[in-house]
Amino acid sequence: MKFYDAVGPNPRLVRMFMAEKAIELPKLEIDLLGGENRRPPYTDKNPGGQMPALELDDGTFLAETVVICEYLEELHPKPALIGATAVERAVTRMWTRRVELWITEPLSAGFRYGEGLAMFKGRMRTIPQAADDLKALAREGLEKLDALMAGREFIARGTISLADIVLYALLDFAAGVGQPLDAKNRNLSAWFSRMAARPSAAASIHPIAKAGKMRG
Amino acid sequence: MKFYDAVGPNPRLVRMFMAEKAIELPKLEIDLLGGENRRPPYTDKNPGGQMPALELDDGTFLAETVVICEYLEELHPKPALIGATAVERAVTRMWTRRVELWITEPLSAGFRYGEGLAMFKGRMRTIPQAADDLKALAREGLEKLDALMAGREFIARGTISLADIVLYALLDFAAGVGQPLDAKNRNLSAWFSRMAARPSAAASIHPIAKAGKMRG
Repeated sequence: MKFYDAVGPNPRLVRMFMAEKAIELPKLEIDLLGGENRRPPYTDKNPGGQMPALELDDGTFLAETVVICEYLEELHPKPALIGATAVERAVTRMWTRRVELWITEPLSAGFRYGEGLAMFKGRMRTIPQAADDLKALAREGLEKLDALMAGREFIARGTISLADIVLYALLDFAAGVGQPLDAKNRNLSAWFSRMAARPSAAASIHPIAKAGKMRG
Repeated sequence: MKFYDAVGPNPRLVRMFMAEKAIELPKLEIDLLGGENRRPPYTDKNPGGQMPALELDDGTFLAETVVICEYLEELHPKPALIGATAVERAVTRMWTRRVELWITEPLSAGFRYGEGLAMFKGRMRTIPQAADDLKALAREGLEKLDALMAGREFIARGTISLADIVLYALLDFAAGVGQPLDAKNRNLSAWFSRMAARPSAAASIHPIAKAGKMRG
């Protein structure tokens, strides 16, 4: 297998997932800032043009962060970051979806149509007039999740799961691009500190981010 | 188990998935048009306020269409609508995500912020100024998928999968609310006709839709 890696919150999410499972894979670096992921030959393999991706030994080319994590969990079930039973998996998947729909999707779109517009407007249809409302949606999603986190150490279950990793990677990136987590979200702020202290958080920072050019 | 059902494309999607597997579950009807899903007691169980949901015998309350379908596939693996192997599941999940990100998410948001605005503006933050661009995104996503469908009978694999069901249910609904599939998408138009001819398509139409008040 080969991991197509790049800077940015989505590859970081999968690297952190792998670090929690002590999975090491050969990596091929794609120049995301230079747009290498938005043109052939990469788009011949992944027509979505997104990063990261996982190339299997049989040639299958897998894209989409959560899909890659699901596949890696099937190959390396322990520790279970999605779940060891059908119900555990369902609950983790539900919270991962909520994190995405309530927070990371509007946050990412708000970045692409706002602070990231200069980079993204040549790569996709952008909707700049929606940026402020999308960021507001993400803030409201964070407040809603914060209230639901009262008394909980992690988002989906009693232990760390994919839902936590998805949110952490995106929030750590967002803090550097104008969408910091408001400290009034006390439950999530405490959760964020716990996540940041995990060895997998430091181990998954990209060299470009480590060099101080961006976060995450 | 109990299925919390309603009119609308998302419950229809899960009903069609169940029909393909010949799964029958006790149903509890929620008055979606009257907003019953957006207030307690429903939101105490599903803070996302979306439909449908699945209540398990142990009290676990599952929301999110794809999550419910994944759980049902684990209980009833045949016929495999997600996959019988880890690679099959990964490929189906990847295409399901593409269908959602490229088409059904922007299409649904375009509806909520456009034709559906009067119903949705009191229920959530709406972004009416993004409606036209979101619909354009969905149209562009359909064109992209149409090109990739050349020579393929179904979206993800050689047989019907969750990806097909997600797209069919949303497109059948969309045709009734101002976002019909453009016939210039010839591969997808032929695919849509094949999907519409399946017994599961007719079996999953909601009584309110059957009465002619909406599609899907």
